[in-house]
Amino acid sequence: MLNTPIRSVQWNKDKITLLDQRLLPQKIEYLTLSSIEDIWDAIFELKVRGAPAIGIAAAFGLALSTQQSTISNFDEFRLELKKEAAYLETSRPTAVNLFWAIKRILSVVENITSVQEAKEAILAEALLIEKEDEDICRSIGEYALSLFQDEDTLLTHCNAGGIATARYGTALAPFYIAKERGITLRAFASETRPVLQGARLTAWELQQLGVDVTLITDNMVAHTIQSKGINAVIVGADRIAANGDAANKIGTYGLALIAKSLGIPFYVAAPLSTIDVDTLSGADIEIEERHPDEVRTINGHLISPADINVFNPAFDVTPAELITGIITEKGIIKGDYQKEIAILFQ
Amino acid sequence: MLNTPIRSVQWNKDKITLLDQRLLPQKIEYLTLSSIEDIWDAIFELKVRGAPAIGIAAAFGLALSTQQSTISNFDEFRLELKKEAAYLETSRPTAVNLFWAIKRILSVVENITSVQEAKEAILAEALLIEKEDEDICRSIGEYALSLFQDEDTLLTHCNAGGIATARYGTALAPFYIAKERGITLRAFASETRPVLQGARLTAWELQQLGVDVTLITDNMVAHTIQSKGINAVIVGADRIAANGDAANKIGTYGLALIAKSLGIPFYVAAPLSTIDVDTLSGADIEIEERHPDEVRTINGHLISPADINVFNPAFDVTPAELITGIITEKGIIKGDYQKEIAILFQ
Repeated sequence: MLNTPIRSVQWNKDKITLLDQRLLPQKIEYLTLSSIEDIWDAIFELKVRGAPAIGIAAAFGLALSTQQSTISNFDEFRLELKKEAAYLETSRPTAVNLFWAIKRILSVVENITSVQEAKEAILAEALLIEKEDEDICRSIGEYALSLFQDEDTLLTHCNAGGIATARYGTALAPFYIAKERGITLRAFASETRPVLQGARLTAWELQQLGVDVTLITDNMVAHTIQSKGINAVIVGADRIAANGDAANKIGTYGLALIAKSLGIPFYVAAPLSTIDVDTLSGADIEIEERHPDEVRTINGHLISPADINVFNPAFDVTPAELITGIITEKGIIKGDYQKEIAILFQ
Repeated sequence: MLNTPIRSVQWNKDKITLLDQRLLPQKIEYLTLSSIEDIWDAIFELKVRGAPAIGIAAAFGLALSTQQSTISNFDEFRLELKKEAAYLETSRPTAVNLFWAIKRILSVVENITSVQEAKEAILAEALLIEKEDEDICRSIGEYALSLFQDEDTLLTHCNAGGIATARYGTALAPFYIAKERGITLRAFASETRPVLQGARLTAWELQQLGVDVTLITDNMVAHTIQSKGINAVIVGADRIAANGDAANKIGTYGLALIAKSLGIPFYVAAPLSTIDVDTLSGADIEIEERHPDEVRTINGHLISPADINVFNPAFDVTPAELITGIITEKGIIKGDYQKEIAILFQ
């Protein structure tokens, strides 16, 4: 796969090609999915992860099943599409992008009357969902890159990379654009316990891209910023409130406090779809707590007393005042986040 | 071993009893060491860890071998003691407390002329080294406890516990004293990647003591301080400079920055022997970098690309201005560390 951009989900004529992210980085295995059941399984089994990538996989799944359909009656065709959409929705019930992508595909057939036309429109819409995500990520990358200099070193946490999106990612997008332009950006990736997305995914993805990337444990951040001349921190986001507070993978908040104390900028890179103007502030974001065994074990191996109490929040909230800028596909939001976000969403 | 204080090294008449720390927390196994070779092996194989505990083990080792000695000529006895001291020194060539304890044992026989007298004096000195360390740790615990209230929750990093010393530990000493007095102190322990001393040792030790302890990953510190009402951070130290800068396990510096940002006190608990007045500031402390595989693997299992670049500093330096107080056996150093330390060491 050398010199080929990494794509986690690809439409491949009458099949879907999917990078099995569960096996990374030990195994780079692309799966060929040829039925909607394969797609359901891939989403359910976490072979594909990252909200945009899941949405694209679902849209491709519906395109695939409709392409394969032998139904000639349009009403029956539509009924079958709805059934398959409902089926796919059960694959990961909390994934917002999954529902959003399925809804987009369903809405396509509303003003259509023939099966053939519907098949073409559904495939076109699925490819458009992918294309739009790629364009958004590319634009985020362009804006992000405008903040950095040749030879800069950036620290990132978790994986907001190309494999979580159509291409490029969000926080990792500037590395892709820099590579295209011959600009050198170096990276430090924090491992991101408990699930180790930094060690397993970001370190691998940047290595594949040919970026000079160094892996550290999460507690090495302060010493690394101080001793390795880190120029900025850049991370993704899971949800951004109307006042700019940003929920992201656990560890982001501490990273932002350390960046501020040590005087380096802290950027959040995320599409506008991540901003939820109905969430007034970070205090309104509920933090998911996950199973204690994620902390007690690594790769299934116990690393602590088996019955030890554990606190395992999956996310934390970084207050807007610690964020130097929020990099979106429409530009960089800075300063009075409340006001700037309100203007953007008018 | 219920209700028995955990002691990592114990003199047991004509044997030494040693807690095998490599097996913790999955196995609580006490080894019986009956020769100086056993002691050498225990230190070399890291069955015993923690500078004071290593020193005590070495002193006990020399006491054991001299007790077993059948040499009747005093000059020969002394020569044999020196040989065994030199042999023990090769078990862990960078451990300062090892050399210090061996030197103390050797100096005992300087003004002695009979084998019997020497045997008694060496055993007495070894037991005194243990007793002094226990007294120092207890005193640190008393001073530390004076800083906290009943029902307080403290966050600690790595393991500065009883199993690293004769008893009580340094950062964990207040938990032991509180337990004796019926005072409730709760604990959060950060796992301390890469070697996981927090998850493997501190979580286990406090659990054995009956303390309400909760394990978190290192990157959960900021969110935990904010959401769980942590009252203070308390950690140990590996070396403290004349100006109060403190080198400790990697992650301590970030923890101190976060504690300061979030407005909670950050304490370092350490015996005066940890303060090196010949080290002017933290900038003069060399940071050991360890093997990349410590970061790339956990329990021998690869968690990242096998050939990924790694930065693996074992320690970091917390500047004195981030430290609320240094808790020693002679009291709590605060304010102008440079001046206070100079006065203490006059």
